[in-house]
Amino acid sequence: MSTKQQIENVYDVIEKSVPAEALGAVHQLLYGGSPVVLDIPAVALELAAKEDFEIKSYAIPAKDEQRRAARRVKIAAIQNTIYAATTAPVVEQYKAIEAKISVMIDAAAASGANIVVLQEAWTCPFFFCTREKEPWLEFAESATNGDSVKFIQRKAKELNMVIISSILEIDEEHADTIWNTAVVVSNNGGIIGRSRKYHIPRVGDFNESTYYFESQDPQQTVFETAFGTIGVNICYSRHFPQAWQCLALNGAEIIVNPSATTDGLSEPLWSIEARNAAIANSVFTVGINRVGSETFPNEFTSGDGKPAHKTFGHFYGSSYVTGPTGMRTPALSRTRSGVLISEIDLNQCRQVRNSWNFHMCARWADYAKFYNEQLKPDYKRPIVRDPSLPAKKKDE
Amino acid sequence: MSTKQQIENVYDVIEKSVPAEALGAVHQLLYGGSPVVLDIPAVALELAAKEDFEIKSYAIPAKDEQRRAARRVKIAAIQNTIYAATTAPVVEQYKAIEAKISVMIDAAAASGANIVVLQEAWTCPFFFCTREKEPWLEFAESATNGDSVKFIQRKAKELNMVIISSILEIDEEHADTIWNTAVVVSNNGGIIGRSRKYHIPRVGDFNESTYYFESQDPQQTVFETAFGTIGVNICYSRHFPQAWQCLALNGAEIIVNPSATTDGLSEPLWSIEARNAAIANSVFTVGINRVGSETFPNEFTSGDGKPAHKTFGHFYGSSYVTGPTGMRTPALSRTRSGVLISEIDLNQCRQVRNSWNFHMCARWADYAKFYNEQLKPDYKRPIVRDPSLPAKKKDE
Repeated sequence: MSTKQQIENVYDVIEKSVPAEALGAVHQLLYGGSPVVLDIPAVALELAAKEDFEIKSYAIPAKDEQRRAARRVKIAAIQNTIYAATTAPVVEQYKAIEAKISVMIDAAAASGANIVVLQEAWTCPFFFCTREKEPWLEFAESATNGDSVKFIQRKAKELNMVIISSILEIDEEHADTIWNTAVVVSNNGGIIGRSRKYHIPRVGDFNESTYYFESQDPQQTVFETAFGTIGVNICYSRHFPQAWQCLALNGAEIIVNPSATTDGLSEPLWSIEARNAAIANSVFTVGINRVGSETFPNEFTSGDGKPAHKTFGHFYGSSYVTGPTGMRTPALSRTRSGVLISEIDLNQCRQVRNSWNFHMCARWADYAKFYNEQLKPDYKRPIVRDPSLPAKKKDE
Repeated sequence: MSTKQQIENVYDVIEKSVPAEALGAVHQLLYGGSPVVLDIPAVALELAAKEDFEIKSYAIPAKDEQRRAARRVKIAAIQNTIYAATTAPVVEQYKAIEAKISVMIDAAAASGANIVVLQEAWTCPFFFCTREKEPWLEFAESATNGDSVKFIQRKAKELNMVIISSILEIDEEHADTIWNTAVVVSNNGGIIGRSRKYHIPRVGDFNESTYYFESQDPQQTVFETAFGTIGVNICYSRHFPQAWQCLALNGAEIIVNPSATTDGLSEPLWSIEARNAAIANSVFTVGINRVGSETFPNEFTSGDGKPAHKTFGHFYGSSYVTGPTGMRTPALSRTRSGVLISEIDLNQCRQVRNSWNFHMCARWADYAKFYNEQLKPDYKRPIVRDPSLPAKKKDE
């Protein structure tokens, strides 16, 4: 849709158009309020201008408590385009992205970020549309000593930041299985652990089940870091309310959703799903989406009846953060690389839980029973049929 | 927030403010597109003008199929204020609402509606803020032969409409237990069944667990009517993704959410939760919310440190419908009674399911196992703690 491409950010359009006297109310109704706009240090602004990326910073306010000190942390979501042609050698392609990401991480650090979250498979173009294995699977790497992992460990230690780095993993210890993996790196440079994508799309150009396998960790492991307990829910898994919920039940205060999703079907859903997850679970959620279009060497079809083509996207960026009250930040651009820094107070999760009681009233036992019941092969749905309806035909 | 009170409808503010060339894109990004505006018959417009309620009508478009005829139905959401002082005798209060609802149902019928959904406890003021049992519990009635039930049965038969009528039920067959119940009435006037509120709030003025009990139907029964299979998820249960999900798993094509919720905490959540449920489950959802403020005879406190007062609300209306693609209708007013008619094609549920595959990729078995595991008294959350963090103190 051509008109969409003209909009960089719907938040900005509204801010410029809506009369000043109504803007506060519109923000409250659409975004759950107006987060505080934070100044960005000159050094970060300079990096952003020089390297041509957007940088924004907000604070989501929380209440003070008597018995717990505020646990304020700044989390940076980084969205990026690719920076070399997909015809270049894979190492060159990776290095071009790494160079830019390095500067964006520096800008986040200069803005006081404690945690950085990168988009899904930030190390490579999103080549799953091609259905070609070569050379693309050469982007896959070891989650313990691959190139990007070592780079991220250096940055994390140097800048005292936790970094969540979403890559394509090749797992030597398990027969070279490919996984879609987020590596969680400590602010001291060590690897705390990894989290793998739990649901895999089978729609349009997202031929991902061709390339990698579903996570086999039904435990939904979360990671306690120096800056909060973090759960990772990768891309398509954002469509599944349980995926967020299990991470929250396991103690996640922040759930990050590194994604790569294109306009069309998914864009109207983007601003709803992560935000609903923050609300339903009284946690912070961070949606990070790839940005830009990517052109591949060989043409491919998209299963939509249209002619073969070489360009995939447009990935619409629009990364944003939501707090447990439902208040969200404005999104990053729909077209440009960017860094979104959000100051949050982790104490707000419990504050909102105490207020709404969703966790307490959730009747987990009933639902656990229901999920098991409805899985039985002979399950009959409890449909009460209006007895005045005509009898069903045999084939109905 | 005083500025909010000045806004009747955020959709209208945006439509009036945003430049025409950007409006299509803004609608797409904020609302998943622009549903078709349908004409409203003169007779319905006259009823609305005479009785002072809003009436709107939209169509959410779906695709044609080769093997299934379209299953287009029109569903009407009705939101209403109360119409007599809360000091009047309870029968008089009920009759004042009934008279107005009768006209609103007529207007829905004149607009071609096949299904009508009324707000939570439409038969009475939302008196739970008072914590007084008398005279308020005299509004409770039998779900098979109470005053409102008989009225709704007459209207349903007369107008050939399915009506979902949310009342406070007193259940003689079970020791006069009070339930928050939706009665599902056939277009032939018969009672198909009833659905009871599954989660009960314990927040602010919503002292509802004082008055009635949680549904004891973990089956999540749904109702096959002449105009589609309908699930009912009452008010606070909208905050629970599973509540919607179980109804969808059981075959609901439309899930209605009769509500009564006031501005403040819940309003930024209102436009997210039912919409997310439509998306996550590939169904239609209908959120219906009470509207207006209600003043009670005796003062009460709200557990918010503020002085005792007599007025409860503002209930912010804003009823709306969302389709499985995430496209939603504009909302009804934040301040006025109203009728929202939406033409939908029930076939769209399967169309979207086939496109996204959320149901297929949901890993129900894994989650069923997880829910059971995490309920065990000795459950230990799988938190991987950064080993470089200082050891926990004993009381942590």
